[in-house]
Amino acid sequence: MAEKELQKTVSAEELAKDFKEHSVAEFFKKNMQMLGLTGKIKTLTTIVHEYCTNSLDACEESGILPDIEVQIEELGEEFVEVNVKDNGPGLTQETVGKALGQLLAGTKFHRMIQARGQQGIGAAGCTMLSQITTGKPVKVITGTTRAKPMSLEITIDPKKNQPVISNLVELKKEFRGLIVKARFKGVKYVNSEQGPLEYLRRTAIANPHAKITLIAPDKSTTTFNRSAKDIPERPLEIKPHPKGANVDEVITFSKSTQAKKISSFLKSEFDRMGDKAVEEISKGVSFDLEKDPHALEWDEAEEIVKIFKKISFIAPRTDGLIPIGEDRIKKSIESIVQPEYMSVITRKPQVYKGGFPFLVEVGIAYGGNAGRLSAETIEVEGQAAQQVRKIEIMRFANRAPLLFDTGGCAITKAVQSIDWKRYGIKDYENTPLTIFVNLISVHIPYTSAGKQAISDEDEIMEELRLALMDAGRKTGMYISSKLREQEKQNKRKIFMKYAKEVALALHELTKKPANEIEKKLLDIVLHKLKLEEEQGITDEQAEEEEDAGKKKKGKSGKKQKLFTESDG
Amino acid sequence: MAEKELQKTVSAEELAKDFKEHSVAEFFKKNMQMLGLTGKIKTLTTIVHEYCTNSLDACEESGILPDIEVQIEELGEEFVEVNVKDNGPGLTQETVGKALGQLLAGTKFHRMIQARGQQGIGAAGCTMLSQITTGKPVKVITGTTRAKPMSLEITIDPKKNQPVISNLVELKKEFRGLIVKARFKGVKYVNSEQGPLEYLRRTAIANPHAKITLIAPDKSTTTFNRSAKDIPERPLEIKPHPKGANVDEVITFSKSTQAKKISSFLKSEFDRMGDKAVEEISKGVSFDLEKDPHALEWDEAEEIVKIFKKISFIAPRTDGLIPIGEDRIKKSIESIVQPEYMSVITRKPQVYKGGFPFLVEVGIAYGGNAGRLSAETIEVEGQAAQQVRKIEIMRFANRAPLLFDTGGCAITKAVQSIDWKRYGIKDYENTPLTIFVNLISVHIPYTSAGKQAISDEDEIMEELRLALMDAGRKTGMYISSKLREQEKQNKRKIFMKYAKEVALALHELTKKPANEIEKKLLDIVLHKLKLEEEQGITDEQAEEEEDAGKKKKGKSGKKQKLFTESDG
Repeated sequence: MAEKELQKTVSAEELAKDFKEHSVAEFFKKNMQMLGLTGKIKTLTTIVHEYCTNSLDACEESGILPDIEVQIEELGEEFVEVNVKDNGPGLTQETVGKALGQLLAGTKFHRMIQARGQQGIGAAGCTMLSQITTGKPVKVITGTTRAKPMSLEITIDPKKNQPVISNLVELKKEFRGLIVKARFKGVKYVNSEQGPLEYLRRTAIANPHAKITLIAPDKSTTTFNRSAKDIPERPLEIKPHPKGANVDEVITFSKSTQAKKISSFLKSEFDRMGDKAVEEISKGVSFDLEKDPHALEWDEAEEIVKIFKKISFIAPRTDGLIPIGEDRIKKSIESIVQPEYMSVITRKPQVYKGGFPFLVEVGIAYGGNAGRLSAETIEVEGQAAQQVRKIEIMRFANRAPLLFDTGGCAITKAVQSIDWKRYGIKDYENTPLTIFVNLISVHIPYTSAGKQAISDEDEIMEELRLALMDAGRKTGMYISSKLREQEKQNKRKIFMKYAKEVALALHELTKKPANEIEKKLLDIVLHKLKLEEEQGITDEQAEEEEDAGKKKKGKSGKKQKLFTESDG
Repeated sequence: MAEKELQKTVSAEELAKDFKEHSVAEFFKKNMQMLGLTGKIKTLTTIVHEYCTNSLDACEESGILPDIEVQIEELGEEFVEVNVKDNGPGLTQETVGKALGQLLAGTKFHRMIQARGQQGIGAAGCTMLSQITTGKPVKVITGTTRAKPMSLEITIDPKKNQPVISNLVELKKEFRGLIVKARFKGVKYVNSEQGPLEYLRRTAIANPHAKITLIAPDKSTTTFNRSAKDIPERPLEIKPHPKGANVDEVITFSKSTQAKKISSFLKSEFDRMGDKAVEEISKGVSFDLEKDPHALEWDEAEEIVKIFKKISFIAPRTDGLIPIGEDRIKKSIESIVQPEYMSVITRKPQVYKGGFPFLVEVGIAYGGNAGRLSAETIEVEGQAAQQVRKIEIMRFANRAPLLFDTGGCAITKAVQSIDWKRYGIKDYENTPLTIFVNLISVHIPYTSAGKQAISDEDEIMEELRLALMDAGRKTGMYISSKLREQEKQNKRKIFMKYAKEVALALHELTKKPANEIEKKLLDIVLHKLKLEEEQGITDEQAEEEEDAGKKKKGKSGKKQKLFTESDG
């Protein structure tokens, strides 16, 4: 039969009968792994991640100090209930269904605003997972400032990608915030590097203004108290920066603008677009900037984008990007790993393709409890065997920790691409380093809808590398000077040890007083050590200055090409 | 101002104004990196990948020996035209727009059928990229057996996720197949390991029945002729296997079935579901299998799935999964790397969660031109320095090569998880090995819509590991025996060299004829070497038998739990 079939050719018309469309909910339902919802352990951490990032975002947008409680209960084997309660603004009756029961719906996708979530997929994906593993809806209690709190149940109709709400009840008690109670089968709570506790610990590190509590299945409660009491500035919606904007965007914006002239359209739709820049553009293009933007042609937009690349603009505005900040990162790292040395760098905002501004924060901690304990041990003389500490990379995107898909992430790739030996760090993988990296942007280019790794866009890789090199150089200098200091101390010890004996021997020979000889010897030795030391410092300074010179040159050369300090 | 704003809390009702829905096209337009359409080099290879996999799938479904021509022209700096022509069934006027101008539409998503594409996203994603980088539509010529060929132009309306067709013209000339001509900016042709040529070379390796031609920008033409002239069996649409089916699927299928009884519903919707299995299920559940499947409740479906897991079913049908086959893999690898030794394993089909059948094919080639040339060189006595060959992993999913996101892929993780030393391969990363892995399934669990890496589902990892261990053990045995043979030859050489001299010395002492002594000496030596050899072989056999015994035990124990050989 198979042979007979093979001889017959199937026509396009016959194949066309199988042609169907499917909804985005059906797509992700069949591809839960693309949402990070695969693997017993990873799935549970991803669920906690989706709910907590939504809570933190809502609090931030609303100007509230977040207080989030996560409770995980085991209802059976690989069967858990996740209960997340926040003190955020809550969701309205109109938005609650869309937020938790419809994919590709939310407040974040259309705006250029820094947020942990940005797709409108995550929480609805969790609802879908709950539904397909337990057959039950997700239970929600939501309370806003203007309406009575209510409880309701949500499922998704995958074919339509629409929420189905049931059992909506208005509640008597006062409540503002959101409570989500969802059950999942095929997931497992573990207390590992990739489990919910570690996820929340890292969330607390990058969000020192949040109070976060985890009640684990064994009822043990861990609370991460806020170490900063001020609400972080609310990120502002910003416009795309002309550097990085592409022709399609210019055309798309021009169709929907309310401006009557291309010149005013440019000023209203792009960041950092001043009169001077418009004048420069006007001189460089073959058409009149006074014409109607709705009639802008592709070739004309192409001319505009070409000039965007040539002229100077101020760097992207900084109020759209809210970094954690050097002090807070220092305090956070200090409190967790108590390192011997730490170097923290917050770079200035840059732009990657699409006109999205971003910035990079890097902290490198050395010694103390920095690094992660490995299974390997080393013998230390006269002590019990010690576990070896290796490099640990803590990745964050808009302050949300990234725990999975390490190898596929731009941050990991950037760390691996650095020539650490240049900074005196010989075997960086086996050095007790904690490398903390946070990428802040109005749009993080994740490699997948599961938001577990960042795509290695050229401009982002460049900034990551520059920040890592800067912090790495400082850390390397500390490590080198520490080694030099140890060497010096060793030398001094040896000199001291033998000075007495040599003095006695010389006394025997010269008959001069031993203590006088010893004093002279020590003077000579100390003088010599001091000279060596000065020499060392001079070398180091020279090296450092040379380094800085190179860097400055590279940096300013680059900067001038990219941005100017005055309004374009 | 910022401070003032912070003191005001923004209500849920105010935030609700920003709540919007967006289309899947808008989503991917903003996240092209999730489609693999990022990076100058990667983007071009992904484009070639999307068009070629569609051509191969269409030919396969239609029963046509594929003849695909890819031409890449450079129109300017980072500006290319990609021209792909196939001899497939073509697309009808109804389907051509959806196939190339609408995301989440196609023939493959709803069916359990082995295909390279499975999402209905890729080619439409390319149309979107062409549109946003050049402002131009994609040009298409399509010819089917039943209608006149036509040429047309396609763009996408991202807001609606709908194709926009223009300039549709019926053509006079005869043509069956599809020609896609699309222009892209911001992409670059390179002749590297991740470029289109290498992509097509690997496609040819895994599809020896296809003729594939590449005309590069410099007009150089490479043709991969077909080494197999028989059309591979057409993959059949299959039903989900009860092992791995989940409750949600049982419920979903039960709602749309035409069966009147649960018993007949089970038999019609699941693979390998015989009367015996239905009888076993009927005995194990608390309700009557004669009742209407449309009234099936969640708890009841849960009971059914529990019993699915307990009872024995035949392994998934094999006609739904079409492996390349051991012989063809051998021929392919032979022709590319001319290895010294090669071991190829095709495993039996298994099922992963969701009831999706899959199978794993592994080929390990050693020596010859196996492995990839690295930048490192070694000095060989009396010869020019030679480049060191390192391990090369060739990943395929349903015969389509995977070139990117290596670290995030289940195949790479499986290779890294093997204890190669156990098989006598001491430093596997620096051994001249080409490891060829092909995963075949009716649904490949990709980590992202860009289909560049496979998610590490437990059942898939297990099969990958078993196949790699099996092929690895054989390869390791070859390497060990080769080393032993070398050692033996060395020993023999040394013995031979001294036998003559010793014979002469003994002749001086004993005065017996030197040639007689030499002959006797050689006899003794050869006898000793032969004994050693036999000893060696015996050890090896014992080891092998022990190994096989272990494996058999492990395997059959596992097998019995999963599937039975007779109808369940």
